[in-house]
Amino acid sequence: MDQNKNSTCRELSLRQTAKFLKRHDHFIILTHASPDGDTLGSAYALYYGLNEIGKTASVLCPDVIPKKYDYFARKTDHVARENATVIAVDVADPSLLGALRDEFGDAVDLTIDHHISNKRFSKYLYLDADAAATAESMFELLRLMKVNINDITAKALYTGIATDTGCFKYTNVTAKTHLITAQLYEFNLGAAEINRLMFETKPRRLLELERMVLEASEFHFGGKCVVLPVTADMQIKTGCSGTELDGIAVISRSIEGVMAGITIKQIDDTEFKISLRTFPPLDASAICQKLGGGGHKGAAGANVKGSLDEVKQAVLSAVGQALEETDAGTVTAE
Amino acid sequence: MDQNKNSTCRELSLRQTAKFLKRHDHFIILTHASPDGDTLGSAYALYYGLNEIGKTASVLCPDVIPKKYDYFARKTDHVARENATVIAVDVADPSLLGALRDEFGDAVDLTIDHHISNKRFSKYLYLDADAAATAESMFELLRLMKVNINDITAKALYTGIATDTGCFKYTNVTAKTHLITAQLYEFNLGAAEINRLMFETKPRRLLELERMVLEASEFHFGGKCVVLPVTADMQIKTGCSGTELDGIAVISRSIEGVMAGITIKQIDDTEFKISLRTFPPLDASAICQKLGGGGHKGAAGANVKGSLDEVKQAVLSAVGQALEETDAGTVTAE
Repeated sequence: MDQNKNSTCRELSLRQTAKFLKRHDHFIILTHASPDGDTLGSAYALYYGLNEIGKTASVLCPDVIPKKYDYFARKTDHVARENATVIAVDVADPSLLGALRDEFGDAVDLTIDHHISNKRFSKYLYLDADAAATAESMFELLRLMKVNINDITAKALYTGIATDTGCFKYTNVTAKTHLITAQLYEFNLGAAEINRLMFETKPRRLLELERMVLEASEFHFGGKCVVLPVTADMQIKTGCSGTELDGIAVISRSIEGVMAGITIKQIDDTEFKISLRTFPPLDASAICQKLGGGGHKGAAGANVKGSLDEVKQAVLSAVGQALEETDAGTVTAE
Repeated sequence: MDQNKNSTCRELSLRQTAKFLKRHDHFIILTHASPDGDTLGSAYALYYGLNEIGKTASVLCPDVIPKKYDYFARKTDHVARENATVIAVDVADPSLLGALRDEFGDAVDLTIDHHISNKRFSKYLYLDADAAATAESMFELLRLMKVNINDITAKALYTGIATDTGCFKYTNVTAKTHLITAQLYEFNLGAAEINRLMFETKPRRLLELERMVLEASEFHFGGKCVVLPVTADMQIKTGCSGTELDGIAVISRSIEGVMAGITIKQIDDTEFKISLRTFPPLDASAICQKLGGGGHKGAAGANVKGSLDEVKQAVLSAVGQALEETDAGTVTAE
């Protein structure tokens, strides 16, 4: 393990990456914090692949791995830190190593990733920014290494691809995504059951939160804008927190006729986090910049101080102005 | 057009189907009633394909085509009934021709379908029951005919495949589904926008209905069973009806820990329609048979007379008994 801070990061081809893996024998595979299907699926696929060719490897995740991934996230080997080669998978930035950052932030030998924003913090890097998921690259890597792929490896890879693409719904999907997935169907994949676990199962508390949020929802500007408040009270009463709340913003953009979906999540007594989802010609990023935030054209955010009413008025005013400027149909305040 | 009732139906190979289409010049293409993405996507893909090789064709749908399909469902040719060859697409049974049944029920020359339950009501039939969508077969047919595929044809085919598979989520997906889809990505597909329209846009009235249903939801047997009532009052207040209500049963099976999701939809003052969704070892079909209905292992239904409370008690009693019999963990009535 090389503990020196890497002043330069060398990019490898897929073939060089395969050679690198074959040259070493003991691996520590790191996922990012708040683990998702792609970081876990790619890490475990690599683990199973390395095992198949007689290497030992240990998957380390900075956080507890959610139980829903149990079908592929099994116990891995114990590998001593001292003589291990450290691979980070789907990790764009050392800060995403969370609790493992202090130990490994400067000590990653190879990163395998698909984020264009990768910070090049490791000694070596395999980056395919056109891949919809790191799991796509992992499949190609295992194939290139002529490693035997098992059913469980296929399940892990499918999970990575399916979760990072919203089950093949998003703009990141390419012909290659579908070609790789077709090859995964040659295994005993159980894709429908994986998809049910990943996409169609939600805790009862989240359903209760959604009910409360819909109860408190408001439509403005003739139905072109919806406001979904997620108050501290709702979070406490239901016990929902963290990434669980992300689904509310998804609801805000799914309502027919809505061009601006606003989620207002209470952080504490004096601060709210606004998540804005828009459709063209509205620019969420431009609107949120007026509120001191930023983001992308279709999805942006801002933290705003004030009471719920004050924050709501601030964002509604910014959205109303944008609707007028873009001449997005007749604007009538309700 | 052959108006004689077809006493025998002849199955064609894909090659024979291609030859059949090349031999004729004027087509009427029928979709099924309550049109979905597959019947429409397949019908319009066939229309565009036939146009490319100089044939005229008219797509006839028994119902109004929902506006969300406008991106491929354009105005088609006018074709006189008298000398037209009639093709039914994704139609398993003449009753599914709805308002067009009287005119065409006995007059379909060729059906292209993927339902194993196809009633063989037409003169000729191309049936691939392993296809996840009729659109899969339509793609293979157009390729075999060496017909030029345009962007709009690709959009129509993708819509058929995506909608009939829940965007590649269901058990009907195969390697071929993904291989065909990969080829559709060679066109200017705009798949993410199609998926948003098909899967992530819901009318405001439906959101309001979901809120009301969640408000009235009840959990039983320690959270293993949920009851979602859709009363006449809710249907009237929100204006939701027909297939729009199907999403409620989807919610009932998506709640973590729920093994039996019960939707009770009011039909009139004295009758309710139960939709039951279960997970193994529970058998929805067996439970609904006790209530005078039937269906599949994971999804079944029954129409039950009585008040909402009586109907609820009847189905809860049947589910409770099934839970005890299958020894599905500790059963505690709440």
